[in-house]
Amino acid sequence: MYPDDTICALSTPAGAGAIALIRVSGKDAFAICDRSISLNKKGNKISKLPGNTIHSGKMHHGNQPVDDVLVSIFRAPRSYTGENIVEISCHGSVFIQQKILEILFEDGARLALPGEFTQRAFLNGKMDLSQAEGVADLIASQSAGAHRLALNQMRGGFSLEIRSLRDELLHFVSLIELELDFSEEDVEFADRKQLLNLTDRIHRLIENLILSFEYGNAMKQGIPVAIIGPTNSGKSTLLNCLLREEKAIVSEVAGTTRDYIEDIFILDGMQFRFIDTAGLRHTTDKIETEGIRRTMKKFRQASIVLIMADLTEDPAKTDHDLAFIRNNKEEYPKKTLILVLNKKDLITPEILRSHVKTYKRIWGNKMVSLAVSAKHGEGIKQLEKLLISSVRTLPASEQQVVVTNVRHLEALKPSLNAIKRVKNGLGTNIPGDLLAQDIREVLHYLGEITGEITTDEILGNIFKNFCIGK
Amino acid sequence: MYPDDTICALSTPAGAGAIALIRVSGKDAFAICDRSISLNKKGNKISKLPGNTIHSGKMHHGNQPVDDVLVSIFRAPRSYTGENIVEISCHGSVFIQQKILEILFEDGARLALPGEFTQRAFLNGKMDLSQAEGVADLIASQSAGAHRLALNQMRGGFSLEIRSLRDELLHFVSLIELELDFSEEDVEFADRKQLLNLTDRIHRLIENLILSFEYGNAMKQGIPVAIIGPTNSGKSTLLNCLLREEKAIVSEVAGTTRDYIEDIFILDGMQFRFIDTAGLRHTTDKIETEGIRRTMKKFRQASIVLIMADLTEDPAKTDHDLAFIRNNKEEYPKKTLILVLNKKDLITPEILRSHVKTYKRIWGNKMVSLAVSAKHGEGIKQLEKLLISSVRTLPASEQQVVVTNVRHLEALKPSLNAIKRVKNGLGTNIPGDLLAQDIREVLHYLGEITGEITTDEILGNIFKNFCIGK
Repeated sequence: MYPDDTICALSTPAGAGAIALIRVSGKDAFAICDRSISLNKKGNKISKLPGNTIHSGKMHHGNQPVDDVLVSIFRAPRSYTGENIVEISCHGSVFIQQKILEILFEDGARLALPGEFTQRAFLNGKMDLSQAEGVADLIASQSAGAHRLALNQMRGGFSLEIRSLRDELLHFVSLIELELDFSEEDVEFADRKQLLNLTDRIHRLIENLILSFEYGNAMKQGIPVAIIGPTNSGKSTLLNCLLREEKAIVSEVAGTTRDYIEDIFILDGMQFRFIDTAGLRHTTDKIETEGIRRTMKKFRQASIVLIMADLTEDPAKTDHDLAFIRNNKEEYPKKTLILVLNKKDLITPEILRSHVKTYKRIWGNKMVSLAVSAKHGEGIKQLEKLLISSVRTLPASEQQVVVTNVRHLEALKPSLNAIKRVKNGLGTNIPGDLLAQDIREVLHYLGEITGEITTDEILGNIFKNFCIGK
Repeated sequence: MYPDDTICALSTPAGAGAIALIRVSGKDAFAICDRSISLNKKGNKISKLPGNTIHSGKMHHGNQPVDDVLVSIFRAPRSYTGENIVEISCHGSVFIQQKILEILFEDGARLALPGEFTQRAFLNGKMDLSQAEGVADLIASQSAGAHRLALNQMRGGFSLEIRSLRDELLHFVSLIELELDFSEEDVEFADRKQLLNLTDRIHRLIENLILSFEYGNAMKQGIPVAIIGPTNSGKSTLLNCLLREEKAIVSEVAGTTRDYIEDIFILDGMQFRFIDTAGLRHTTDKIETEGIRRTMKKFRQASIVLIMADLTEDPAKTDHDLAFIRNNKEEYPKKTLILVLNKKDLITPEILRSHVKTYKRIWGNKMVSLAVSAKHGEGIKQLEKLLISSVRTLPASEQQVVVTNVRHLEALKPSLNAIKRVKNGLGTNIPGDLLAQDIREVLHYLGEITGEITTDEILGNIFKNFCIGK
């Protein structure tokens, strides 16, 4: 970390546009910009002007004019990073963007590392680590659901609650450690009843947060949906129908979709990641066998599995291909399985009724099934509703405070174990030093989430995934 | 034109980035933004705050939070468009960008047309038409030369001079037209000597501007360089060597580069557009013949022609292919021709000396020639110097005021004719009404350049090529 130097970067997306924004942050930001920018109002200097004001000026490189710019001034600590910041708004030519950065380098700024503005904001106490991670998630968000969770995390989300509970816990552990100094006198500074109450609250919070991860992760990464079924049952047609565009090749030749194609689409603000798989076909063809192996791998990764059957085929024959899934159903208790009976347009209502009955008998009445015509888009709206409701039933889908980050989950899991030990310890009246040790462990892991406890390695891993300029 | 409504657009490049900027301009800009943005400082309203200030706030859509934003306020007429402007700086997620635009649409703004912000700036007298065109050129500029000319044009360039001379001329024509009202009294309000002096100045300016177009256009569009020569003389290798990357396919098979490949590179701040052409080969192969036809077309378009000869071949044989160019040399008096003798690494110094002598004899001593090895990069630095100096000798290469725009050239040409007629008329004492008519013509065409005289069609043509958000 170089808290003493001044960084700069292009903060708007790369490429040409009407306007580009270059940010300069650090203690020399004003002086550096004053070297190459003459404000239009005579006598005005960036370093002399109040924060949160905008001024027009001319950027030059020695005697060479570079651009007419707008300069926004932010004075520490009232800025994104908590440092002095100048935002230079220039004409969005790539040439000008590069030229301005070159000038700033010459005048003493250096190119910011990915996420370095946000890292400085964190180091200067403008936000905690989980909020900083929310910033990156917010920029990456592509659906209303992911956006809502990221914005909430950036604005404090669960980390405010964790910080406050952690502070309370810190108070208790200090008292317990003080007791140890008076161990011969058998005093009790820390009220065990209050501590148990606090421990209960922390336990509940951590448990809820861990439970919320499945939903949070689905919202952030997209809900993985696999479409699985015999060749020619219409998997690609169904996918295209759902994606409303031709991304997978639809063909009459059996086994066309040998490799899986991933695609996303957004329903009701939630992002679904569709996994198109090779058809399940008994074959000695090595590529096909490999395709099936991959299909099964994808099947295991999916939260929702659409099992496709072709209504124009004999249900008994189809079931020969699908039996594998039915027989292993109990392996995936958390998956939502939907039996999609396709090509209903090609059969009579009588046959449809009879086939549906057969499938119900085979799969059981609890199995959700739906007859559709992927080719003609019939039944697709109902299928979409099933997809939406299967996500809505996940725990935490209604709560604001949701964990979306694997790093947080990885810290929450050991803190759950530690807090359980604290609770047990309180129940069994274990010695204060052991109790304090367990509490310290809870404090450590919760502190990792908010960044109160951190290492250069953790910070490096987090900020390297940011874009430059943020 | 809808001068009464409020427009908005994303002004930063499309895509995700750290920061995106959405501009809102028009008389309702403040009221519209106040509907969806709550400033963090209690009681603050965008519509109540002074211009050129920045405020943090929260954007919302009904009850749904959308983003934490920074709001820059510009009050008419102190803004880019001359109208009230709000610049919303948000997190650069595509989702957020779209969401904010949707909210602004709901609240009464509409999406700006391409260049509409700049068009409003023009209509509100913030800049003239040629300056507005400079804005678009500045954003598109990719080399130091193009950038310098565009910036100069945006800051007023020649249009300030044209406007001032035009105003003077307007004064004279008013006086002459006043004389016509008193025609029976034979008065002379307009001093003919002063008018002649002014006409001279305008004549010189227009002539200089027209002359500067070749240079200006070369700077803006890039200087077209054709490489021409027999198959296998190493044209693609030379091009790659100059471009320093493998863009054309180099192959031992004669006639590989059937189609021409255009590529640009920047030397000393000047942009060169290289035109790689098919080899000149006598053949009955139809594609080859077509290739040669296109080569000759490109040859005519080029400002600089590199004529390639293979030193490992008999000069007499090579000349058979190149004679066509030599014999038509006088057709292209303005072109710079450079004879590039390639593959000097494959022959002995003796043969090199002898071949160079032969070529000098064939082409004449005035012809610039250079022995190189494109394969090993020998002699390429010297070739680059020749390219640079051939541009430096163009008229106007040193002057600041340069015409780069075909529209301006098209207006300058008839104004040159008209101003000549005015001069002649003054010399031959033609009647005042005829003189006034010629002066009015000059005024008309000069006014088209600055936009003092314009039509919706001209404006439409100019601004449709802008990006949205500018």
